[in-house]
Amino acid sequence: MQKTMRGLLKEAPRPGRFVYRTDLPVPQIDDDEVLIKVRCTALCGTDLHIMNWDDWSQIHVKTPLIPGHETAGDIVAVGKHVQNRKVGDRVSCETHIPCGSCWFCRNGMPHICENVRLFGASENGAFAEYTKIRADSTFLLDGGISYEAACLFEPMGAGVHGVERAEVSGKTVLVSGCGPIGLTAVSACKTFGAKLVIACDLVDQRLETAREMGADIALNSGTCDLAAEVRARTGGAGVDAAIDVTGAAAALRTGLKCVRAAGRMVCVGLPTKPVELDLTNDLIYREVTLTGVSGRSIWETWKDFAAVLQGPYFKIDRVMGQRFPLEDFAKAVEAAEGGVPGKMILYP
Amino acid sequence: MQKTMRGLLKEAPRPGRFVYRTDLPVPQIDDDEVLIKVRCTALCGTDLHIMNWDDWSQIHVKTPLIPGHETAGDIVAVGKHVQNRKVGDRVSCETHIPCGSCWFCRNGMPHICENVRLFGASENGAFAEYTKIRADSTFLLDGGISYEAACLFEPMGAGVHGVERAEVSGKTVLVSGCGPIGLTAVSACKTFGAKLVIACDLVDQRLETAREMGADIALNSGTCDLAAEVRARTGGAGVDAAIDVTGAAAALRTGLKCVRAAGRMVCVGLPTKPVELDLTNDLIYREVTLTGVSGRSIWETWKDFAAVLQGPYFKIDRVMGQRFPLEDFAKAVEAAEGGVPGKMILYP
Amino acid sequence: MQKTMRGLLKEAPRPGRFVYRTDLPVPQIDDDEVLIKVRCTALCGTDLHIMNWDDWSQIHVKTPLIPGHETAGDIVAVGKHVQNRKVGDRVSCETHIPCGSCWFCRNGMPHICENVRLFGASENGAFAEYTKIRADSTFLLDGGISYEAACLFEPMGAGVHGVERAEVSGKTVLVSGCGPIGLTAVSACKTFGAKLVIACDLVDQRLETAREMGADIALNSGTCDLAAEVRARTGGAGVDAAIDVTGAAAALRTGLKCVRAAGRMVCVGLPTKPVELDLTNDLIYREVTLTGVSGRSIWETWKDFAAVLQGPYFKIDRVMGQRFPLEDFAKAVEAAEGGVPGKMILYP
Amino acid sequence: MQKTMRGLLKEAPRPGRFVYRTDLPVPQIDDDEVLIKVRCTALCGTDLHIMNWDDWSQIHVKTPLIPGHETAGDIVAVGKHVQNRKVGDRVSCETHIPCGSCWFCRNGMPHICENVRLFGASENGAFAEYTKIRADSTFLLDGGISYEAACLFEPMGAGVHGVERAEVSGKTVLVSGCGPIGLTAVSACKTFGAKLVIACDLVDQRLETAREMGADIALNSGTCDLAAEVRARTGGAGVDAAIDVTGAAAALRTGLKCVRAAGRMVCVGLPTKPVELDLTNDLIYREVTLTGVSGRSIWETWKDFAAVLQGPYFKIDRVMGQRFPLEDFAKAVEAAEGGVPGKMILYP
Repeated sequence: MQKTMRGLLKEAPRPGRFVYRTDLPVPQIDDDEVLIKVRCTALCGTDLHIMNWDDWSQIHVKTPLIPGHETAGDIVAVGKHVQNRKVGDRVSCETHIPCGSCWFCRNGMPHICENVRLFGASENGAFAEYTKIRADSTFLLDGGISYEAACLFEPMGAGVHGVERAEVSGKTVLVSGCGPIGLTAVSACKTFGAKLVIACDLVDQRLETAREMGADIALNSGTCDLAAEVRARTGGAGVDAAIDVTGAAAALRTGLKCVRAAGRMVCVGLPTKPVELDLTNDLIYREVTLTGVSGRSIWETWKDFAAVLQGPYFKIDRVMGQRFPLEDFAKAVEAAEGGVPGKMILYP
Repeated sequence: MQKTMRGLLKEAPRPGRFVYRTDLPVPQIDDDEVLIKVRCTALCGTDLHIMNWDDWSQIHVKTPLIPGHETAGDIVAVGKHVQNRKVGDRVSCETHIPCGSCWFCRNGMPHICENVRLFGASENGAFAEYTKIRADSTFLLDGGISYEAACLFEPMGAGVHGVERAEVSGKTVLVSGCGPIGLTAVSACKTFGAKLVIACDLVDQRLETAREMGADIALNSGTCDLAAEVRARTGGAGVDAAIDVTGAAAALRTGLKCVRAAGRMVCVGLPTKPVELDLTNDLIYREVTLTGVSGRSIWETWKDFAAVLQGPYFKIDRVMGQRFPLEDFAKAVEAAEGGVPGKMILYP
Repeated sequence: MQKTMRGLLKEAPRPGRFVYRTDLPVPQIDDDEVLIKVRCTALCGTDLHIMNWDDWSQIHVKTPLIPGHETAGDIVAVGKHVQNRKVGDRVSCETHIPCGSCWFCRNGMPHICENVRLFGASENGAFAEYTKIRADSTFLLDGGISYEAACLFEPMGAGVHGVERAEVSGKTVLVSGCGPIGLTAVSACKTFGAKLVIACDLVDQRLETAREMGADIALNSGTCDLAAEVRARTGGAGVDAAIDVTGAAAALRTGLKCVRAAGRMVCVGLPTKPVELDLTNDLIYREVTLTGVSGRSIWETWKDFAAVLQGPYFKIDRVMGQRFPLEDFAKAVEAAEGGVPGKMILYP
Repeated sequence: MQKTMRGLLKEAPRPGRFVYRTDLPVPQIDDDEVLIKVRCTALCGTDLHIMNWDDWSQIHVKTPLIPGHETAGDIVAVGKHVQNRKVGDRVSCETHIPCGSCWFCRNGMPHICENVRLFGASENGAFAEYTKIRADSTFLLDGGISYEAACLFEPMGAGVHGVERAEVSGKTVLVSGCGPIGLTAVSACKTFGAKLVIACDLVDQRLETAREMGADIALNSGTCDLAAEVRARTGGAGVDAAIDVTGAAAALRTGLKCVRAAGRMVCVGLPTKPVELDLTNDLIYREVTLTGVSGRSIWETWKDFAAVLQGPYFKIDRVMGQRFPLEDFAKAVEAAEGGVPGKMILYP
């Protein structure tokens, strides 16, 4: 087998582009790891953060690093202790590599492991011909799921995770934000039996897509009194649950007012700064519950997302962007930053 | 029976003292109501709001009004449809008089009834010789509970309600704020099986009382790094649950940082203005749940408070203030506003 | 308006047919009741019990009685205290008329009210031109729901209720029994997001219908080792939840073995005698939870069933039997007892 | 350090006494294990099963075996990968050694691990001078807990686990069976905030002890109509939760009738054969939930039991039997089988 491979490299701990290299060593696997031939890897905002070496990167990333973490491929080698994976398996990867022994790992919450390692950030990732990862951080793909769709598990999973936490079955739900993650949340709500899904966004075209992906009602929160509209559509009460994918302070505040007393709101989007909330009127008097999700429930979210992908509501072409060979990474970044909607997919 | 009685009256919809009158009509009861001979009634901050005719009063209060709602007494007459109460029963009263038919009333949440009426605010209350209320808004007192203690159910109930919502059994808990409600919460945590109760406040004397009422650890949050201390006492993780009785923005922010990942925080104290929270780091990444309680769960909180009152931790003399005849209402207000700690009790 | 009407009457407290009468008085409504012009009423096994005057009837039924309780019609008069219903409303009726004031009624469980009255059993019912019931025991019908479909809410609701209790969203589920209620449960499981639904029955034709109504897998439990098959289809673990609609001892015992450790089983079907269970191996060692549902959650089940009726899985023609004018009641009974599948509908 | 040690040995896979040997090899620890100098080990019914080589033993036990698993001692050596234990630590041991990687292990239920190994059954145990176990299967003892008390964690833990599952805080609870595990359950109910604990047994002396350990009411189920008495003491409703420690069919059936509608029953005791239950009347119509617990929740039950041990209700002398040197094992068995109450403790 070849010893070197093509791939991108973040060379040094300072702002600067990833370098396209043809001489990277093919990874050597440990006994509990698998070697994956990468089929494709999607571009994530986190990759741009690493490129620009922001505060988060300075804490979590070790250079030199092969970035890239929203990926799918084929297993081509397995470590000698690996039991449930074999050469030829088609897989996607969980970015959060949990320790397996902390309290969270032992209680069904490895996604908030206190010793988590990060594929494509603290560890080498998948913008390359090959990547390696612990076998139990891979997800087996059903035959019906394409490699491109498989790249969506990681980035869209947060939306599905938010839907899981909102416990939407039989409920009325508001989804704020109709970008790819919000659209995924909308279709997941319907797949898991929400009675009424109201989507909102500031862009009419996105609302149209939300309707195509299952929203019963789609409202432009920039041109209507959202809380009043939501109450009008829910018998005056407000929705049982709200899912915020925007992270925007105004959307969070309005969303909270849309939730009925004793209902709940789940934050998926990350506010970039502290948010001012009227706790007394919007949360305490009305006994509303506010919570958030981090990453994906392992592997519940993955299984649930597989059901969403294969169900009647999700439309993959509505969240896909453009395709590029890996060496054209700069063009993919340009497209993403230039406003081309959907995920950019890179092929090594 | 007498036709008139002594009592206080808020005469008109504007700021101004309650007037002591001796010619108020004794209430006439409806078929589903009881007439109560008032034994004592405690002074509440809400009474001062009504006196000063603040924004809340302008919306919720109808004058002329007999104020007063934290009360206990003896039933002296029952309406003809009343089944579970009889003359001679010793009772306290729930301030929130629910409609009985809205969704919340039918689902175990009458305390957030959307058509609630307010004893001593929207309806006449108990600063008088007699008061009346719907029979199903009275709580039967065990023989072991004094009338004075019975006046505490309503004001202290919020603390017990917060403990109920925090689900403290077997858990580590932080209680922020050691006034009468916080002290009640501390002793309720212990009564209901919390494994470790950490109390905090800015006043050392209150911390001493918290220890007497069951706190395993009492920390002055003004002179220590509370979050660091709490983590140090909980194996580095933080507490399973936090209960905020202060409503202070700084306490809420610090309290949230004291909660372990996937833990919960329950707000009992009411912030007087919006609070800025670092949702991303303190709530979303760590999947913490934030919620609040309003009033008392009817009648769960009342029964639970009875257990707290009769258990080994609660010390009633630590939350009692001074006693006054009803005609000395002005002196009671003066004592409360002058910093005399504990509840002021008025005798008609 | 007419003073008398046509209808069936159970005249005396002993076994004997219902008598078709043309001189029954049209009901007089109380202030909180509505008068309904009956459009159609379905035949229920309970009607046969009343006819045959079995033990249950001797306790619960008062003669003379107009039987019939699975009904739909139009409101033609409302009592003076009725607020949320008006003449012209299309409605179906909840058979369990709760007291509204017991602990269960006040805690979201009016369907197990301890003072419940029974429409069509302890009170006159709907095998007549007109019927009356308390307004808050009627369910408003969406325009899209036919009167015939509306007769299914009551009898099929138990299946939907079982699905609610099983919390199927995202889970693997076994439904035992594919008669009309089991088929309703199968389609409800899919509507509310079950990941995998396995249906079983002893009759192949019913299994075929189960597949049409959403079952992912349908197994004949008479010709396969059900527990082994179920484990094989669920990665060796067993299903997350099982719903028993048969009430048969053998099905209950096998169903329990099909549930994974820490899973749950919900009983909808009523065993006619005590059932022997291997609690040690099937429930305790594996920490399985066993529970049951009674009637319908009011009004959650009704709303959920409306979603099932209007969703992509339910096929109403698969659970409908034949139609008869009310005077041919005897023929409807004959058809039901003779094995004609589905619900018999009677038109007054 | 010494190479050989004294201890008991089950030599061959057939019925027969344990042999007292002085030449057993001191265990060699793996990298993730600790070596424990045994201070004392309690006698368990399971030890007698192994001695008599019953069906269970034939499946789970490998000979030659050092039996004994309810133990406490001091760590005298640690493997090189061990991080949270050190020489000198006082510890007790969890008998269920989970795999750490199955679905149950990863979701907070390692006690029902599907690949569990059994200390003192499938692995050598603690009837010897030294024993070894994986470090993460040891529980650190607070200074205030004696070695003898520490031997109770494993056997009594099931009772505490049942209390955890019953969620007793603020509730009325029935505990059936007042042997050592039942008495532990009674005191755990009180420690964790049960409002009313009713204990029942057939032996008056045990009921007296139950009262000493916190029971509010103790009833002889052989001489009263238990279900009627329980309803009379709970306002007619029945208890919120029942915990069965007897495993007796009659007690299970009566216990189920003592639970209020929508309440729950938790089985701790193991029936020796199938139990006939009236599911229709006792479980389905009343929507009661029936479940069981297996072993101890790791480590929640251990921490909770530590709180019970150190709380005001538990009386250790009431559950302790007699003490023997290890070589007098036969006398300990004789005492236990002869009816001496409480746990027999053996000192190597």
